[in-house]
Amino acid sequence: MFRSLVAASLLVAASPLVSQVHHSPLVDPKVAALRDAALEGDHYAWDITEGLTTEIGPRLAGTDDEARAREWAVKKLTAMGFSNVRVETFEMPTWVRGRESARIIAPFPQPMAVAALGNSGSTGPEGVSGEIVAFDSVDALRVAPDEIVRGKIVFVDHAMPANQDGSGYGQFGSPRRQGPTLASKKGALGIVVRSIGTDHHRTPHTGSMSFTEGATPIPAGALSNPDADQLLRILKRGLPVKMHLVLESQNLGKRQSGNVIAEVPGRDPTLPPILVSGHLDSWDQGTGAIDDATGVAIAAAAAKRIMDAGRPLRTIRIVWFGAEEVGLLGGQDYRTKHGKEPHYALIESDFGADKIWKVDSKLGEARKSEAEAIGKALAPLGIVTGSFNEAEGSDIGPMLGDGHPGVTLNQDGTRYFDIHHTADDTLDKVDPAQLRQNVAAWTTVVAILSGGIEEPKRGKRR
Amino acid sequence: MFRSLVAASLLVAASPLVSQVHHSPLVDPKVAALRDAALEGDHYAWDITEGLTTEIGPRLAGTDDEARAREWAVKKLTAMGFSNVRVETFEMPTWVRGRESARIIAPFPQPMAVAALGNSGSTGPEGVSGEIVAFDSVDALRVAPDEIVRGKIVFVDHAMPANQDGSGYGQFGSPRRQGPTLASKKGALGIVVRSIGTDHHRTPHTGSMSFTEGATPIPAGALSNPDADQLLRILKRGLPVKMHLVLESQNLGKRQSGNVIAEVPGRDPTLPPILVSGHLDSWDQGTGAIDDATGVAIAAAAAKRIMDAGRPLRTIRIVWFGAEEVGLLGGQDYRTKHGKEPHYALIESDFGADKIWKVDSKLGEARKSEAEAIGKALAPLGIVTGSFNEAEGSDIGPMLGDGHPGVTLNQDGTRYFDIHHTADDTLDKVDPAQLRQNVAAWTTVVAILSGGIEEPKRGKRR
Repeated sequence: MFRSLVAASLLVAASPLVSQVHHSPLVDPKVAALRDAALEGDHYAWDITEGLTTEIGPRLAGTDDEARAREWAVKKLTAMGFSNVRVETFEMPTWVRGRESARIIAPFPQPMAVAALGNSGSTGPEGVSGEIVAFDSVDALRVAPDEIVRGKIVFVDHAMPANQDGSGYGQFGSPRRQGPTLASKKGALGIVVRSIGTDHHRTPHTGSMSFTEGATPIPAGALSNPDADQLLRILKRGLPVKMHLVLESQNLGKRQSGNVIAEVPGRDPTLPPILVSGHLDSWDQGTGAIDDATGVAIAAAAAKRIMDAGRPLRTIRIVWFGAEEVGLLGGQDYRTKHGKEPHYALIESDFGADKIWKVDSKLGEARKSEAEAIGKALAPLGIVTGSFNEAEGSDIGPMLGDGHPGVTLNQDGTRYFDIHHTADDTLDKVDPAQLRQNVAAWTTVVAILSGGIEEPKRGKRR
Repeated sequence: MFRSLVAASLLVAASPLVSQVHHSPLVDPKVAALRDAALEGDHYAWDITEGLTTEIGPRLAGTDDEARAREWAVKKLTAMGFSNVRVETFEMPTWVRGRESARIIAPFPQPMAVAALGNSGSTGPEGVSGEIVAFDSVDALRVAPDEIVRGKIVFVDHAMPANQDGSGYGQFGSPRRQGPTLASKKGALGIVVRSIGTDHHRTPHTGSMSFTEGATPIPAGALSNPDADQLLRILKRGLPVKMHLVLESQNLGKRQSGNVIAEVPGRDPTLPPILVSGHLDSWDQGTGAIDDATGVAIAAAAAKRIMDAGRPLRTIRIVWFGAEEVGLLGGQDYRTKHGKEPHYALIESDFGADKIWKVDSKLGEARKSEAEAIGKALAPLGIVTGSFNEAEGSDIGPMLGDGHPGVTLNQDGTRYFDIHHTADDTLDKVDPAQLRQNVAAWTTVVAILSGGIEEPKRGKRR
């Protein structure tokens, strides 16, 4: 049960540089030891990430692939020794990608790399052809007269930057989120947007969108960044540009999804649990390695490391949400079923597994010293202490909004949107050393929130 | 006519750091000035690269796309002011890609990214399904008993490194070149190889191969590197692995290709010409930016810069070869028609446009001082002088083998095989500053080989 901790402690002890360094008196030595052991030797997170991406691969919400992922998750969490492993199911509308292609047919015939956006309408098997009308932003599309859009294929550009904090995705993601509805209401035949991404590869970025304000679904896709660049160069020649677009997406109606839940029971089951989470579903083009196999892996690895060390005072509840990508549906279902129950803190990992660089929290004024202790304990991992009044997360966002306390461990997002929602989201993009730093940070936070870990009696091992 | 040279000279003169530096007395000041002007301000190579990749895009040998590229080339070379612009056509067997997909159907169902290799057989529209039999090398496949291969889909792995000199492509390319014939002769249903490439993207590398020794064509594809990694992880689980493979390639029979030729006439037309070249065709997945739009662009830009400066003693002959990718057919045709004629030197650019780092030459003992002068003149560009007894090039290789003199300007190949033969071979991969360094090096070499440039009388311009 505590073999991993013992082995890791030996590792640390074997390093004279570490053992000769005096630690901050402001950090509980037991917490520091758990942190350093995870940083040195965690393998749980890699095992889960490698296993889920290899044995399941893509797992789009509502599909058989996601159902197989739930079965895999139940087996894995049970094998790891967690308690109360269960699935809470829910129904959801299910959309799937079909055959897809784009081709410039005039003035310079050539293929373009395209991916349908989630909830895209279908062109049918024959596809549609239309003249391109291009906009540098959603704002430009919004003010355009209907006449210049009607019957055409809209292209919306943007200039999303790659920032460490991931800012840019919100603002520059508007072509994907709002573009299809605006284009549909103006009578467009279809829409292609520049991928909401920061790479230079022919791997278009999909992502969710929905037709609102009563807009009729139209075919909606993303061009890869090199293709968007190419389309702009072609448009600059000043000749009419025509595209043929095939997006054979389908709505399958209501299908089942679910949240997979497991626990490390606390010594006092009457206390509110600490919720540690990520999402199990992924987009369908890659194997969902950074989005979000690493997230579920980090959450479970931290819980496992606490369990290996002994019994926490508070219950640690692992939730691997279903159907996050297509509209945060797993988070909604958990909130419906458990949102009124008290939680000691909510934490979610859904931003890859590059190095955590900042911790934010929202634990309330009465728990300021706990939040400060978290910052002190994370500092040796190179993590700055950010806000004491902010926490966020995709699935947990609405519950945080309801007033539940939370902690956010912010990963470096500089390369996240190179890969996010593309076929390139595969295991080779995960850096094992940075993944261990994530687990070390999470283990530290959960150890502090746990209310203390009671070590098992060691007599029998001697 | 010499506007560009004059403008560039002004640029150089305007830089006090450059003007205050004493140049090597071993380099002809006129050659140095041409070199430095190209490094500062060449735009010809970018214009050609941008134009060809934008207005034509992919241009697979034998197709209408390649025919459009020839028309584009004739117009462009004529507009640039070259003489004797012409196309020398030839017939060639033409292969085209069709619909293609790969899917692991057991034990862990999931899609894989695949691209047919040139000359692949077709699976037909229904595809084929078979158990995977895996080999770490062509050598392992070669010694395998037929029984373990028959009726199966062969996978051949390798571990190609990314080297500056591009070494590795020869040795580690054997799965693509030899694998399909070996697999066919052992009765395999099909073959997939790890992409002959060094990247980590879901963009498989195509490339030519042919079935030799009387082997029957079978479906032959390349998996992307992340997919090959994934297949290995799946195989390591020890369960039988089954793949469904669809590669609907087609042979279209004989079609036309051709070499596009243009000249800067020398003052003495009886002297053998200097041949400067690249290849016009490309693979069909990307727009052939680094392979080989930059090559034809560099060759023509260097010739244009000499022409802008005045009349060379020797004729400079630009050749944009057709059908290189599918078997060096343009080079063969040129050799058949002109291989017996003397050439003063052959040069080809077909390795992208990253910085040239080494010059090799094979001009013969009698021209050693000319080869040394080339080395001295290139040194300020950061180019080391390599061998005096070696020159190479894809299309020009056989003629160099016949004994024609040649020069090789070696580009840095460290990232070349990340992109080579993939959908990612697009304009954004070309670095304009490094492209100018290429043109500067080529201009230097061609200026030295030209036998001297007679400047036009300037009287009328004053």
